[in-house]
Amino acid sequence: MIIELKNVEDANKVMEQANAKKLEHVFQHNNRVGFVDQNALGDVPFEIDNVEQVITEHPAAIQASRLFHPENTVIKTEHSVIGDGGFALIAGPDSIESAEHVLLMGKDVQESGATLLRGGSFKPRTNPYSFQGLGEEGLKWHREAADKLGMDMVTEIMDTRDLEMIDKYTDMFQIGTRNMQNFALLKAVGKTNKPVVLKRGMSATIDDLLNASEYIAAGGNHQIILMERGIRTFDNKYTRNTFDVSAIPVLKDLTHYPVIGDPSHAAGVTKFVEPIGLAAAAAGADGLMVEIHNHPKEAFVDGKQALTPAQFDHLAKVATDIHNLVKEEK
Amino acid sequence: MIIELKNVEDANKVMEQANAKKLEHVFQHNNRVGFVDQNALGDVPFEIDNVEQVITEHPAAIQASRLFHPENTVIKTEHSVIGDGGFALIAGPDSIESAEHVLLMGKDVQESGATLLRGGSFKPRTNPYSFQGLGEEGLKWHREAADKLGMDMVTEIMDTRDLEMIDKYTDMFQIGTRNMQNFALLKAVGKTNKPVVLKRGMSATIDDLLNASEYIAAGGNHQIILMERGIRTFDNKYTRNTFDVSAIPVLKDLTHYPVIGDPSHAAGVTKFVEPIGLAAAAAGADGLMVEIHNHPKEAFVDGKQALTPAQFDHLAKVATDIHNLVKEEK
Amino acid sequence: MIIELKNVEDANKVMEQANAKKLEHVFQHNNRVGFVDQNALGDVPFEIDNVEQVITEHPAAIQASRLFHPENTVIKTEHSVIGDGGFALIAGPDSIESAEHVLLMGKDVQESGATLLRGGSFKPRTNPYSFQGLGEEGLKWHREAADKLGMDMVTEIMDTRDLEMIDKYTDMFQIGTRNMQNFALLKAVGKTNKPVVLKRGMSATIDDLLNASEYIAAGGNHQIILMERGIRTFDNKYTRNTFDVSAIPVLKDLTHYPVIGDPSHAAGVTKFVEPIGLAAAAAGADGLMVEIHNHPKEAFVDGKQALTPAQFDHLAKVATDIHNLVKEEK
Amino acid sequence: MIIELKNVEDANKVMEQANAKKLEHVFQHNNRVGFVDQNALGDVPFEIDNVEQVITEHPAAIQASRLFHPENTVIKTEHSVIGDGGFALIAGPDSIESAEHVLLMGKDVQESGATLLRGGSFKPRTNPYSFQGLGEEGLKWHREAADKLGMDMVTEIMDTRDLEMIDKYTDMFQIGTRNMQNFALLKAVGKTNKPVVLKRGMSATIDDLLNASEYIAAGGNHQIILMERGIRTFDNKYTRNTFDVSAIPVLKDLTHYPVIGDPSHAAGVTKFVEPIGLAAAAAGADGLMVEIHNHPKEAFVDGKQALTPAQFDHLAKVATDIHNLVKEEK
Repeated sequence: MIIELKNVEDANKVMEQANAKKLEHVFQHNNRVGFVDQNALGDVPFEIDNVEQVITEHPAAIQASRLFHPENTVIKTEHSVIGDGGFALIAGPDSIESAEHVLLMGKDVQESGATLLRGGSFKPRTNPYSFQGLGEEGLKWHREAADKLGMDMVTEIMDTRDLEMIDKYTDMFQIGTRNMQNFALLKAVGKTNKPVVLKRGMSATIDDLLNASEYIAAGGNHQIILMERGIRTFDNKYTRNTFDVSAIPVLKDLTHYPVIGDPSHAAGVTKFVEPIGLAAAAAGADGLMVEIHNHPKEAFVDGKQALTPAQFDHLAKVATDIHNLVKEEK
Repeated sequence: MIIELKNVEDANKVMEQANAKKLEHVFQHNNRVGFVDQNALGDVPFEIDNVEQVITEHPAAIQASRLFHPENTVIKTEHSVIGDGGFALIAGPDSIESAEHVLLMGKDVQESGATLLRGGSFKPRTNPYSFQGLGEEGLKWHREAADKLGMDMVTEIMDTRDLEMIDKYTDMFQIGTRNMQNFALLKAVGKTNKPVVLKRGMSATIDDLLNASEYIAAGGNHQIILMERGIRTFDNKYTRNTFDVSAIPVLKDLTHYPVIGDPSHAAGVTKFVEPIGLAAAAAGADGLMVEIHNHPKEAFVDGKQALTPAQFDHLAKVATDIHNLVKEEK
Repeated sequence: MIIELKNVEDANKVMEQANAKKLEHVFQHNNRVGFVDQNALGDVPFEIDNVEQVITEHPAAIQASRLFHPENTVIKTEHSVIGDGGFALIAGPDSIESAEHVLLMGKDVQESGATLLRGGSFKPRTNPYSFQGLGEEGLKWHREAADKLGMDMVTEIMDTRDLEMIDKYTDMFQIGTRNMQNFALLKAVGKTNKPVVLKRGMSATIDDLLNASEYIAAGGNHQIILMERGIRTFDNKYTRNTFDVSAIPVLKDLTHYPVIGDPSHAAGVTKFVEPIGLAAAAAGADGLMVEIHNHPKEAFVDGKQALTPAQFDHLAKVATDIHNLVKEEK
Repeated sequence: MIIELKNVEDANKVMEQANAKKLEHVFQHNNRVGFVDQNALGDVPFEIDNVEQVITEHPAAIQASRLFHPENTVIKTEHSVIGDGGFALIAGPDSIESAEHVLLMGKDVQESGATLLRGGSFKPRTNPYSFQGLGEEGLKWHREAADKLGMDMVTEIMDTRDLEMIDKYTDMFQIGTRNMQNFALLKAVGKTNKPVVLKRGMSATIDDLLNASEYIAAGGNHQIILMERGIRTFDNKYTRNTFDVSAIPVLKDLTHYPVIGDPSHAAGVTKFVEPIGLAAAAAGADGLMVEIHNHPKEAFVDGKQALTPAQFDHLAKVATDIHNLVKEEK
């Protein structure tokens, strides 16, 4: 149940009483209070004044819901803003390959407007004998490049035991598609105070994704960015996954978190990355995460889907134009 | 096998010899000849001169392939052109309800730029007790409205036995998603000389769709428009189907037929029709087919997904702008 | 709404009154009456006496529902019984190839217990250039073989225009997976008095299948056999489709029609046909339809999934044993 | 590449040389040697004598492959054997609820033939506010019950940081469906010497599952049991997941690890657990894992799908009978 109170002070009072009664799973956002375990005013063991509205039909992921938190969440890092109506660009190589390479790639994408530099040092590979990432050395090079360029660093975490180490380097955590329901990991990043990019699982429903985000929020971290990256369907002959473009407006409707698209993993091949990225922009995404490489054929991982810096430059420009066009004509 | 000859005359000669030898399934497009049953020059029982190129890796749907027919197919009807680089708008009510209603809806969508008036008189309903369409009376009213407005009429055919009757009225046939592999029906419209809008089946792969189109082409009718309308996946809580936006660039890459999007059936609810329609435009669609209704709640069928004329007007404008923006920046 | 009356006479009276009032979509089964358009006793424009029970939560496919028709439907043909607790075996070649071949195959499967001889003379092929079946000549040979052997003939119909012709030959119609929602075809076989084997569509939900059956029932034909044959999912590398084994107990729970399994099309390769067939038997199927061929590599169609007669003999024996074991231990 | 040598000594020699040359990812099983990074004899930097066969077409998960390890892997624990041709029964409550309850449940399932007692103390719940398991206290009660009864304990691990603690209690680790590609966790259990039950991910392909098992094997732990538990498809109205019954024979064909079925999570409702379990047995499973509860309505988690002890007893008996019947008639 979500209760809208007349004003924030009323909500503060409700929280005080809830805490006094040691109620669990009660959350406040401005003048709204969300109760996970109470479904009617009568279930609450104290009186509540100045109730404007009681909302009983809401998603299980109560803190993620717009009914609890109507206005957009805006994520701010040193060099970037996501979710404020602008169009954020996160780009970089799939894997960190060397200090020079990540710096070069960072320079290129920065020139095209990217403010966040992505790159994997811990790689979730289907097969154990594939390259698994450079580990901490990669993180260092990644950090150095971001610092030199004045960009934010985004990197994937795969193991709760790595949290402290990765936290020393990165500005933003990324949770990969195969770990979207790795609840231990979600809880761990939920205890940090850094933004988390949460990729939708390959077969995760919209509700699954919101519930996964709620694991992070339940830990106290509300800096969450949701990412659509393609789902698994019956047809993957020409693209690696099926980019679920309608997930973008659906999520924007249900939740206040920013929503970005990853056209690279959805496409799986370079030539379809741009049209998917443009579609994401047209559908209302707050930004894109794109993999690039200057020599795709020599990339350590996923070269087949990497854009060259020039291709990324074109995508970045047109996607931003579409984003602005849709915004203006609203 | 597809053979590219030096010039059209060489291809003409190949066809003459193929006909003389009574080879089946041999097709010509300009200076190209496609052989379904022969996979190497040595399989052909005659000499071929001036061969420029032999292509052996191509889709089974040979006539649909860009390797056989590199340039875009452009469909022209009295009032419309589809596939020439413009953005075609097909709109109208889900079902024909009355002479007045289809005329009114036609007027509205025409003002927003639509040149093709859609509407169903034979409705493929999941349940036999649901409204099945008005039949021939609906066709008449639909025809009258199209004539009065100077629009092209598009309507669905569901039964081979109705071909002659529907052919008397319509300018363009539509094959619905549930009939995409109704091969008897595909063969039947393949014998007509009218354009066919072929909707992708709910669980049809890209190859299935191209093969379905080949049934029409095999009958001699090459005026085919392919339509993405959403596929069936594991998540249909918030949208009725999953709009497979990447199918648009994939199809544009593989085939020369125009590709349009149907955001209405993909969304299933009004509020997601526009973002899906815009995404389709951004991904390279040649147009949209959209369901509208002036009083969605009173619509005979599928009112939940109908746009009002004003909503359609906005979608039409922004989608066309996106289409033009993407084209200009190419 | 389904109403259970005290006895059949009471239900007869209700039907008389419904007919007098010209109510549409009202059906009787023994002492039960199903109303499609009325959802409460108050919606019915006459008094009803001796009401035992009013059921308002039931599937849209009212005649298919066990709530309307609690006991099993048993299908009887000259040589076979399906749905009476026995285990029916339908077998034969994918396609009719010659008079001799279908007779030989029929003999073989009859020796293994099959009483129904399947075989296609009209083949639904993905690509138009593939073998489309022998047409009426195939039907004749199929009929002759069935007559000589004292078996029932089952064959697929794909076009409403073929109904009269196929009806002259066959004992049982089959509707293929791609035509499960070819509503014109369902209506057409619904007007005949012959049993119909309705294959589940590749992406049809259980409800879709029941609604498809209702199109047949709505025409007055209640001799319906439902068939699970594998659905389309994200993984088809090792089997052609995913045999949805739980569809069998689900359907047996929801509907009174017999349910059989087609392990051949689900498997797509010979070696997995038997385990899938045995699983279907264990899950409660009323029988199996299996494709066989004496020289699988030379089969006109789908040789890769054909069992040899000896392999079918083994499957038939073990599946029947499992069926009996499960029945005895109930 | 997999090389079959004349005898084990030859294979031993190959391994010595590979080690001397510091080749990575080379594995031996009896007289076979698998090379991950070398695809032809010429790629190996030393001479190999007595080569019987070179296999270059094999799955990426080389150690899982029957081509590398032809005979069945048999898993032996103190009280159980899995994969030796018998039918293993793993049963118990979804969650550990109390010391008394798990003991009572254990007694019941042991009487029905189960030798492994399952139960979750760490629960992977979709929503963070749901009951997350009793943690270490649950493990203790679980261990006590197993010891008192002379059964093996199986429990789920969700976090690499819990490994040492859970390892103190359990006889067998379970990796849940949402963690099937939690590669850090797979590596962690791969370093232990206890059997691991690896549940197929909800949208994992067969190859994904084998690759996940390879992460465990790569760590040196070859005691792996694969589990089919239902996949995510377009239809989950009547069952929670789609039990992919053909995955069982497919896996038995591809890999030497035992394969068991979990009908409880596939069904999601009690009434379909038995037919799915029987189907798994008929399809060749080496055993079943089943959730039971004496008062399903009061179960902490997933009571809707729990069998009562009496229902389990019936399933256990019939499934074992089917297993034996299929084995005998082979």
